[in-house]
Amino acid sequence: MIDKTFTIFKSALAFSHQIARNKIKAGDIAIDATCGRGFDTLLLAGLVGEFGKVYAFDIQEEAIESSRHRLAGEGLLERVEFIQDDHSQVDFYLAARPIMCMFNLGYLPGGDHSKTTRASSTITAFDKMADLLLPGGSITMVAYCGHKGGNEEVQALRLHLAGVSQRNLEVVELSFINQVNNPAHLFVATKLNGGRE
Amino acid sequence: MIDKTFTIFKSALAFSHQIARNKIKAGDIAIDATCGRGFDTLLLAGLVGEFGKVYAFDIQEEAIESSRHRLAGEGLLERVEFIQDDHSQVDFYLAARPIMCMFNLGYLPGGDHSKTTRASSTITAFDKMADLLLPGGSITMVAYCGHKGGNEEVQALRLHLAGVSQRNLEVVELSFINQVNNPAHLFVATKLNGGRE
Repeated sequence: MIDKTFTIFKSALAFSHQIARNKIKAGDIAIDATCGRGFDTLLLAGLVGEFGKVYAFDIQEEAIESSRHRLAGEGLLERVEFIQDDHSQVDFYLAARPIMCMFNLGYLPGGDHSKTTRASSTITAFDKMADLLLPGGSITMVAYCGHKGGNEEVQALRLHLAGVSQRNLEVVELSFINQVNNPAHLFVATKLNGGRE
Repeated sequence: MIDKTFTIFKSALAFSHQIARNKIKAGDIAIDATCGRGFDTLLLAGLVGEFGKVYAFDIQEEAIESSRHRLAGEGLLERVEFIQDDHSQVDFYLAARPIMCMFNLGYLPGGDHSKTTRASSTITAFDKMADLLLPGGSITMVAYCGHKGGNEEVQALRLHLAGVSQRNLEVVELSFINQVNNPAHLFVATKLNGGRE
């Protein structure tokens, strides 16, 4: 076992949670772009509080049901709107602007490993989320290289994000370079005030 | 001008300063491995307080004199021991274990651009610093790709750091992937409790 007492970042997932905790205040709107088993949804529902709202997307019914069950167990179901659709359709569903959007890419843990997120729809979703985001809001993307197609997705994302104007977004990639077993990368994009000379 | 109000990381240098501020307490020992014009030395001297100590290395007399002048101007000279020697000799000079060590690689700003840090001595220095560091202590390395030999230094560092055991150090690379003009990379290495099964 590795003693993680002193780590600053821990992992892509853990650091994305730290950013969410720093960023989200009670009453905010947040998006879980890939609700999976509902772990990020639960974190977000706790942070937005009683008068905030979480929009949680997944294309798989199994993921939505699993997440709904988790949130119900914690009594937080009413803070979440579950949407079984492609996250690239986000602009169709949102009534207000979010401060935070979390992606956790790849496949559904314990589900069908052949059903994975793909770079093309992830990129479309990212661009729409970035447009919707409030200034100061962040998008986190936990991206895995280990599964089939994972490496191609990470490379395509990096290439796309490297081309985004630094006037609009701060984009930083965190790589856990000495971890074994293909650790996830974390992309953090934060919306700036934009384009003012 | 880019409005940086909302940025999380800002730049490799700015985020290395944020880590130093979080990590260092009054009375601590800190190392500026590349004192240059003394900006990091000044930050560290402020953070270690009246009873702490900073060891500041540079091989160039011009850098030491320039930094000494800056520290004297702030009345903080007595907290700093300036050492005009290769930082890979660090184990020869230190009497106590540091909590923080900062590298800002490349050439002396406003100095001779042909005199740069080199991967081989930087790596030797890194390994010695990592041995000396207290558990929980961090090494930050701001590394530039833009100057002659810079890209090779960054690649050699990355390769070396990727091979460090994750039982001993958490090593994370931060890349500012959408910034123009070869932005610096930041490597952050944090010492863990080490190797306990």
